[in-house]
Amino acid sequence: MFSNGGWMSQEDIALLTDLYELRMLQSYWETGMHGRAVFSLHFRELPPERNFILACGQTEVIRHLERLSFEEEHLKALHSLGGFKDEFLTWLRDFRFTGDVHAVPEGTPIFPHEPILEVEAPIAEAQLLESFVMNQVHLQSLLASKAVRTVLAAEGRGVVDFGLRRMHGADAALRGVRAYWIAGLDATSNVLGGLHYQVPVAGTMAHSYIQAHQDEDAAFEHFLRLYPGTILLVDTYDTLEGVRKVIELAKRSSTEGLISGIRLDSGDLSSLSKQARLLLDEAGLDDIKIFVSGGLNEFKIAQLVEGGAPIDSFGVGTDVGCSKDSPMIDLVYKLTEYDGEGRTKASPGKHILPGRKQVYRHYDTDGRIDFDRLTLRDEADSGTPLLQPVMKDGQVVDDMRLERLDQARDYCRREVQALPDSVKRLSSLGVSAGIEVRLSDKLKAFDEAVLKKI
Amino acid sequence: MFSNGGWMSQEDIALLTDLYELRMLQSYWETGMHGRAVFSLHFRELPPERNFILACGQTEVIRHLERLSFEEEHLKALHSLGGFKDEFLTWLRDFRFTGDVHAVPEGTPIFPHEPILEVEAPIAEAQLLESFVMNQVHLQSLLASKAVRTVLAAEGRGVVDFGLRRMHGADAALRGVRAYWIAGLDATSNVLGGLHYQVPVAGTMAHSYIQAHQDEDAAFEHFLRLYPGTILLVDTYDTLEGVRKVIELAKRSSTEGLISGIRLDSGDLSSLSKQARLLLDEAGLDDIKIFVSGGLNEFKIAQLVEGGAPIDSFGVGTDVGCSKDSPMIDLVYKLTEYDGEGRTKASPGKHILPGRKQVYRHYDTDGRIDFDRLTLRDEADSGTPLLQPVMKDGQVVDDMRLERLDQARDYCRREVQALPDSVKRLSSLGVSAGIEVRLSDKLKAFDEAVLKKI
Repeated sequence: MFSNGGWMSQEDIALLTDLYELRMLQSYWETGMHGRAVFSLHFRELPPERNFILACGQTEVIRHLERLSFEEEHLKALHSLGGFKDEFLTWLRDFRFTGDVHAVPEGTPIFPHEPILEVEAPIAEAQLLESFVMNQVHLQSLLASKAVRTVLAAEGRGVVDFGLRRMHGADAALRGVRAYWIAGLDATSNVLGGLHYQVPVAGTMAHSYIQAHQDEDAAFEHFLRLYPGTILLVDTYDTLEGVRKVIELAKRSSTEGLISGIRLDSGDLSSLSKQARLLLDEAGLDDIKIFVSGGLNEFKIAQLVEGGAPIDSFGVGTDVGCSKDSPMIDLVYKLTEYDGEGRTKASPGKHILPGRKQVYRHYDTDGRIDFDRLTLRDEADSGTPLLQPVMKDGQVVDDMRLERLDQARDYCRREVQALPDSVKRLSSLGVSAGIEVRLSDKLKAFDEAVLKKI
Repeated sequence: MFSNGGWMSQEDIALLTDLYELRMLQSYWETGMHGRAVFSLHFRELPPERNFILACGQTEVIRHLERLSFEEEHLKALHSLGGFKDEFLTWLRDFRFTGDVHAVPEGTPIFPHEPILEVEAPIAEAQLLESFVMNQVHLQSLLASKAVRTVLAAEGRGVVDFGLRRMHGADAALRGVRAYWIAGLDATSNVLGGLHYQVPVAGTMAHSYIQAHQDEDAAFEHFLRLYPGTILLVDTYDTLEGVRKVIELAKRSSTEGLISGIRLDSGDLSSLSKQARLLLDEAGLDDIKIFVSGGLNEFKIAQLVEGGAPIDSFGVGTDVGCSKDSPMIDLVYKLTEYDGEGRTKASPGKHILPGRKQVYRHYDTDGRIDFDRLTLRDEADSGTPLLQPVMKDGQVVDDMRLERLDQARDYCRREVQALPDSVKRLSSLGVSAGIEVRLSDKLKAFDEAVLKKI
């Protein structure tokens, strides 16, 4: 395990699962239950602080499914756990995912009971994926759904991801770069993530850089000489004093545009940004931009914007990176059909709609999203179908559009703009928030019929 | 990047950093600032919902520092970002971490301003580590600090990690297994994490397994035949009906101990566990244990325990895995000394105590933790010093004790038991919670002297 210097590799994914998945797998193998199952990945309720969820991560996850297999060392490791038969482990050696997957496009705003993806495969295969698929889609959807709120709050101003240091581990920070880009953030401070996903990487200096120098002037001068066009961090000692030093420096340097901006990271950002803007403008430096950071979230950004703070860009960190006000989505991966028959669950508060489904999105004449209709897969409807085939017989459907992050970002922006204002606003409307999800008559009837059979 | 099939590798760690770290690095290189710096990793305030933080992850992170280097492909990638000189990139090729690290043992309950670790190295080296070290120690400390509360609430009953599916990505779920083990959880459902860290792996069946069968009886029978001694999930349709089926099955099977337990995952767990216990006991099956899960956290566990629910083990998932009530620690990595001189920062609310430090823990005559004293590194004190050298000149100090998770777990249990009851209780006591951290006179005087010099 983790042979990769203490980090997991693509090969380890087969074991990034809950033990019960493998126990069930062996039981299906042993009893010869190879019927096709349908599993739906969806959530049952919006978190109280969200009016919509952005579906994210589903395209990346299916690429991993395509290559999923058990290596020899993994089979040995499973053997060491006990309870697995040698014949089963031999069978696992040839295990491949051979199923079909339908998914909504990445960046789609979705609502309760709407499948992000549906997996159809022999039950053992479909079951095995549960933990891994959930872990990855939950992460990216969670982060995108929080980040898009800062984009809405910033009303066109820039938003940059500074979350790496306090996001939940390396995977969260890396996949976050991807989810944030789809959600509309403009850049990331995360070098590895930015390089991997080809997202712009941004960053200049920390307070420690200023502190390490004998004084602020020396630090500014050193940095500017090496990085013409940089942003300077002005709040290490006294913010407005820092701004005055930047002005002095800008006046001394003959080249225009040498200092592109200042960053404020503490104190009353509204008042300080206004005072700083005044000082800069008085000095004729109206091209120097103001960048702020420090404990920001969508509500603080909205307050600064509404208060007329002359801020050009916001850096967001921990609050967004941990989705602090709502660090989880009630995402589930549930059996809805087995061997051609609809399945459901009657546990209190955990009802599952049976069958293969489609989501039809209905827009009004102004292009606003009006309502969604949840139907059985093959029903006709005048709306736009959201679920599309993305995997067939274990192979990703050959359509590179799926993986174009820029395209997902554009689509996301359009769909979010098309949400009603009541859904786009930051404060939650409680239970009634979100878009109405209507069930088709056929789906309702099927649900009742399946419930009766239990 | 991510050449490892879309997953990062040990080699990628050098780039798992914020761009500003690399920009500062080049500036230090360019201006010849090679003075030794001291950085302290600590938090400034307890989260409102925590009375203590368990320091976790610091031993694992230093193993990565030992091997940190820039590969050719990484240098090329940096070049593509622009702003980096060829000579600097050539210099990076030979970059190694050559510094010293002091750290508190993993599993130590810590309080505001107490360093989890202190790094001493040429400033460029020490600065580069910031983002990665914070990301990893924040994650494990966050998860351990939440998990230990469930262990306290369970009062000796078992607690098992089911968090994988909704933790924030793969790294969180994997490192979580390690942090949870130190914090005192008994097992994990996460196969890869359990195998890697040699933590017991647990799990039986999901609702989908029951649903896939024609009825509950058939599912129970199949599973039990393959896994004698298993736990059966009884709440898919009607919990007490499920319990009766288990009783029937247990009576039919001649071997004692064939069914080791039942699991309840929904409904009123207190009432259902009592009714289930009664049914089982009446049938003479008092050796069948009761396992519960479903949205549990420390408060719900405490309520069940206080209410006398006859539960043997608890499965905890998302609430613990996302540290839902407090998904972040205000962890910082701050410069406290450069080139032999103490450094601080005067930004509002962000004061940093200067210098190299030691934490002396003082116990009362009953072995309870009485107070901590934060001193300069070389001060004498009658307490137990917490910070120990763990890395010298870039090499991990040869003491395998550091990496024995079992030893960290034992140490953690003893230290947590030694906390005053007011700190161990689940509800927060507000600002006054935690152990008193006294500053030594010398540290106070040094702090004042450094502040005056700004």
